[in-house]
Amino acid sequence: MSLRTLSAATSGLALAIAAIGFQPTPARADEGMWTFDNFPIARANATLGTAIDQAWLDRVRLSSVRFGGCSAGIVSGEGLVMTNNHCVATCVANLSTQARNYAETGFTPRNREEEQTCPGGTAEVLTDISDVTGRVRAAAAGRTGLAFNQARDAEIGRIEQEACGAATDKRCQVVSLYRGGQFKLYTYKKYTDVRLAFAPEDRAATFGGDLDNFSFPRFAIDAAFIRLYENGAPAPTPTHFTWNADKPVEGTPVFVSGSPGATQRLLTMDQLATVRDVVLPMDQLIASELRGRLIRFSEESEANAFIAMDPIVGLENTYKRGLGRMRALTDPAFMATRAEGEADFRRRVASNAALTQRAADPWGALSTVQPIARELYPAMALLEGGTGIGTTSVAGGSQLFAWARTLVRGAQERAKPSAERLPEYGDARLSSVQSALFAERPTYPALEQVRMEWWLSKTREWLTVDHPAVRGLLGRESPEQLSARLVEGTTLADPEVRRALWEGGLAAIEASDDPMIRYLLSIQDETRAIRADWETRVQAPTDQASGRLATARFEAYGDTVYPDATGTLRLTYGRIEGSDVPGQRWGPFTTFAGLWDRATGAAPFDVAPKLLAAKDRIDADTVLNMTVSSDTIGGSSGSPVVTAAGEMVGANFDSTVLTQRNAYGYDRNVNRSVIVTTGAVTVALRDVYDMGRLVEELGAH
Amino acid sequence: MSLRTLSAATSGLALAIAAIGFQPTPARADEGMWTFDNFPIARANATLGTAIDQAWLDRVRLSSVRFGGCSAGIVSGEGLVMTNNHCVATCVANLSTQARNYAETGFTPRNREEEQTCPGGTAEVLTDISDVTGRVRAAAAGRTGLAFNQARDAEIGRIEQEACGAATDKRCQVVSLYRGGQFKLYTYKKYTDVRLAFAPEDRAATFGGDLDNFSFPRFAIDAAFIRLYENGAPAPTPTHFTWNADKPVEGTPVFVSGSPGATQRLLTMDQLATVRDVVLPMDQLIASELRGRLIRFSEESEANAFIAMDPIVGLENTYKRGLGRMRALTDPAFMATRAEGEADFRRRVASNAALTQRAADPWGALSTVQPIARELYPAMALLEGGTGIGTTSVAGGSQLFAWARTLVRGAQERAKPSAERLPEYGDARLSSVQSALFAERPTYPALEQVRMEWWLSKTREWLTVDHPAVRGLLGRESPEQLSARLVEGTTLADPEVRRALWEGGLAAIEASDDPMIRYLLSIQDETRAIRADWETRVQAPTDQASGRLATARFEAYGDTVYPDATGTLRLTYGRIEGSDVPGQRWGPFTTFAGLWDRATGAAPFDVAPKLLAAKDRIDADTVLNMTVSSDTIGGSSGSPVVTAAGEMVGANFDSTVLTQRNAYGYDRNVNRSVIVTTGAVTVALRDVYDMGRLVEELGAH
Repeated sequence: MSLRTLSAATSGLALAIAAIGFQPTPARADEGMWTFDNFPIARANATLGTAIDQAWLDRVRLSSVRFGGCSAGIVSGEGLVMTNNHCVATCVANLSTQARNYAETGFTPRNREEEQTCPGGTAEVLTDISDVTGRVRAAAAGRTGLAFNQARDAEIGRIEQEACGAATDKRCQVVSLYRGGQFKLYTYKKYTDVRLAFAPEDRAATFGGDLDNFSFPRFAIDAAFIRLYENGAPAPTPTHFTWNADKPVEGTPVFVSGSPGATQRLLTMDQLATVRDVVLPMDQLIASELRGRLIRFSEESEANAFIAMDPIVGLENTYKRGLGRMRALTDPAFMATRAEGEADFRRRVASNAALTQRAADPWGALSTVQPIARELYPAMALLEGGTGIGTTSVAGGSQLFAWARTLVRGAQERAKPSAERLPEYGDARLSSVQSALFAERPTYPALEQVRMEWWLSKTREWLTVDHPAVRGLLGRESPEQLSARLVEGTTLADPEVRRALWEGGLAAIEASDDPMIRYLLSIQDETRAIRADWETRVQAPTDQASGRLATARFEAYGDTVYPDATGTLRLTYGRIEGSDVPGQRWGPFTTFAGLWDRATGAAPFDVAPKLLAAKDRIDADTVLNMTVSSDTIGGSSGSPVVTAAGEMVGANFDSTVLTQRNAYGYDRNVNRSVIVTTGAVTVALRDVYDMGRLVEELGAH
Repeated sequence: MSLRTLSAATSGLALAIAAIGFQPTPARADEGMWTFDNFPIARANATLGTAIDQAWLDRVRLSSVRFGGCSAGIVSGEGLVMTNNHCVATCVANLSTQARNYAETGFTPRNREEEQTCPGGTAEVLTDISDVTGRVRAAAAGRTGLAFNQARDAEIGRIEQEACGAATDKRCQVVSLYRGGQFKLYTYKKYTDVRLAFAPEDRAATFGGDLDNFSFPRFAIDAAFIRLYENGAPAPTPTHFTWNADKPVEGTPVFVSGSPGATQRLLTMDQLATVRDVVLPMDQLIASELRGRLIRFSEESEANAFIAMDPIVGLENTYKRGLGRMRALTDPAFMATRAEGEADFRRRVASNAALTQRAADPWGALSTVQPIARELYPAMALLEGGTGIGTTSVAGGSQLFAWARTLVRGAQERAKPSAERLPEYGDARLSSVQSALFAERPTYPALEQVRMEWWLSKTREWLTVDHPAVRGLLGRESPEQLSARLVEGTTLADPEVRRALWEGGLAAIEASDDPMIRYLLSIQDETRAIRADWETRVQAPTDQASGRLATARFEAYGDTVYPDATGTLRLTYGRIEGSDVPGQRWGPFTTFAGLWDRATGAAPFDVAPKLLAAKDRIDADTVLNMTVSSDTIGGSSGSPVVTAAGEMVGANFDSTVLTQRNAYGYDRNVNRSVIVTTGAVTVALRDVYDMGRLVEELGAH
């Protein structure tokens, strides 16, 4: 369940996150998270012995769905979409109460009328890609520093607004690819009524829990179905994947279509050192403490266990991924390969005098930024998030805080012309902000307080008591006192209150006596100053040097390169195969027989009750999970795995710990994505959860 | 309160911890933790303008005390000893109940009869140092690998046994200095009846808590008094420091006499990379999770807050120190200096053909060990501790587990001849083992279970579910189930039970049905195998290569070098002075006026009640804390700070975060020790805590 990306807090800063860059050497066979408008059809066919074409690509694209921080695939003509169970875990938690806990029982609606809307859920299908590089570049031409970034972002906002206007069934997003090497306008068909159609018992999807997460062999039915609705009815989806539940065959070429979140393959060695020395250690250490607090919290009562479950699972996933990344960046062999890649690139630039001059030593410029990035990272990460290099965004810690920030900033920003706002509040993005803000999601004060107290105390610890922002953040209150006062006093848990405050604009915000709103108002000067400092001294010079690096890269290696992952639709390819490297030796398949063997009865190695009850009905040789060599990363969760015939044979739901180096560079020997098979999903629907009507809809047998 | 070393769990492996090595370049002015038999008298006098001599050194040595993981100084002729409050915090906790909590009220006995014995407390004064290098070398001559280490350790055990026999008022310890370059027999006068004579309110000693820890300016009266007893009466201590409570003067030369725990200044760059990449990240991450669990635990009730206080403070101190070390090892400038030192050393060796041959490339040999050390470290640290390179020892997590291990291993080992045992169970060491084991210390089941559950779950996580040792550790139980069963079922909390099991030997252990004893018996094969693996594949080759490195170092740099800290008595020197580097700019003194200014009323910035009540009686200009440039590290806590006239002017209790690089190399510009002044202590005794009788005993005015 590794591959869900982080949601919410950083989305407004998508540009900063997106624009990390691309990998420093040309892609090798099987490598690459390719955009659909630049997929190497001929090379993939040559490598795999397949015969896909542009029409195939178009069908795959229109059958692929972005859902929250996950990916998904349309599998019927009536809007049915398969993704991972962990991608609907928050939806399941939001629809559950302690007494009616769908995570325990599974969610198995008897008919379509019982399918329930996921609060705040939106799904998007990429319908068009067009090049807007010229417009964006022209708008920023001749500017430097922060002014360059502001002009660029304003033009991007205008392009998005012109293309989508106030439409609520479309989303327009200008994506920076190749670190400013290209800007593309991505247009999506957007569904804002997404209903949960099926989820298994949570334990069936998470067998082995955090301990088996990021590993293989694996035994998890990490699959679920949602349905796209339009005008209160299932959306017609004539283009969709064909369901193929046949036993998979080792060596089969497969394609994985999804929206990998972010890779950092272009980072220079100096930038990587910042991630290794400063970013990951801090992120991981404070996550580890929150984990300890939440574990103890969840042990205090059944009620606490219920409300902390989804946060703990998400946190453990992020943490373990971070651990894999730390291992990659401290692996001498891996880092030597990365260094060799950079050295080769630098030699090529150095051997071309004109190129050397145009590039203007981007490595040196980025090196100069690093001491500043190291200094400013803690404040930016803790108070604002959205650095683009961290693993997590902790600002505020709590959902109530996050809503309050959206309300306060949204009101302040909407009082300005769109082009002058923080980019995440540009006109074209407001409808997405509103969907998230108005969603009916439960909040739990005890949990909110644990998280906010943790965030305040960690912020004070890392920035020190005497940091001006910390003085403003806490005044004379302790983290415990302040978080208790705000969480107990706020009424923002009520979506109608949030809606009224949003619609009331700045006047309503300024008149509000909600303590969380007042608090967010009171800390705007300090937190905005920290963001401005980061954007001026780190982000802007990084963007400009990275742009030169990208251009030099094109000149040195031609177009055999793909952009870093940006949370947008990509296609990657490989084969069904096992692994044979130290610490990772296994064949590509596991079966239900293996599940029965591994079960001990003690959590998390207990088989889910309904699944266990169905043991005799299940063919124990059915393949449950498998590994493929495709190039995936967080965000790829739920990605349909399809054959050259366009048939869906599984969904990506994880990768291995060793694969986490994938953030910084692809390693064909090590990289393996973990897949739940359509065969196992069919068994679950048919033999375990009595969901024959979905089996029929899938056309499965 | 940074400078207390870790107690107990690793003490049996003192050799492994001790023998890290010495620093790679000759000592500069002010640098060095010198042994008392090789102190550079002439150089210190020349640097400081003082006139100390051997008689001065002898008096200082005989006035210096090792107490637990701390240092201390004798300050009267009747056994009165000053150390830090944080050095008696565990004693205070052991003597307290929730209803009679001396941490809250302070411990202020009206007369000597009310002074209470610290459970398990022992104090030692170094009376003699003699050279046994020849004997130890001869015993191990011609052997290699593990056999070398075993022969060496057996001979050390024989020397200690011959010198001390069964004496309970002496301790004999063979110390490996310069990484096998020298072996010295240290003989101590040992006091096993150590009573608490005064402790302030905890908050008076910990004002600013974890947030101000490892920082300056500082406002903490981190001082306490113990008294050495013999035969039920105060021990006569004719040799002691003179108390000087005068206002300190900037620039005054001072000497700090104490037992710094461990430095790692000899480590090669490859070894340091292992510490940076593997050791510190793991230690810190799991400590951070325990911290989160304990913080939440302590918030659950007053009772939990009481029992978790001492563990949390100790953990936060270790964690923050580790953070400082991580920062040092990821500071490019600092690491460049370290690399230059190594390069210089290697050049000197390379320029001398005979030396090159004798040294036999110790750097290469140590480099070869690192991949193995990286692989084996997690299992060794989690299951055995005592790696010598970690910041903490977590094996078992709980005190009950630690006692059970001592009982089981002690019984198994005592069944063998002394020379064949694990060294910590050699005859000469048994009396110390027993003192610790039989001490009447309270244990709290709820706390024990939190810690043991954490340890089991982290061990399973880091080693993975499928590690053979983890299978043995958990069987089919979960960490929660197992820890509950063991903690609830054991009777080892009763010291009489422990005594009976110890005295009953192996037969009693094997007949015991105590679940903790049975558990420890059941995991001996796995855990001993992991230790043997580490000692064979990491420790032995490291020791041998480090020995060659040490010899080469003597040849390259002569005798201007001092050994790494080994938890034994050292003298370091410097001046009272402030700091003027980025992030650390301040004069050398703080006053009570500064304390009143910094107080907010909210913990941990609340002034202790009795101290606050005395505000009007206190001269606000009295110097409270000060900084000196001497070379200290964890274990130096409580070290007397003395003038060239032999007068005590304060006690070391902390250093700054930047100073934590001191573990790996001394930096005169950055290194500052934080001192509580005798003037402030006099004020506390006289004006706050009504301890006039101690003021008189000190001869203070």
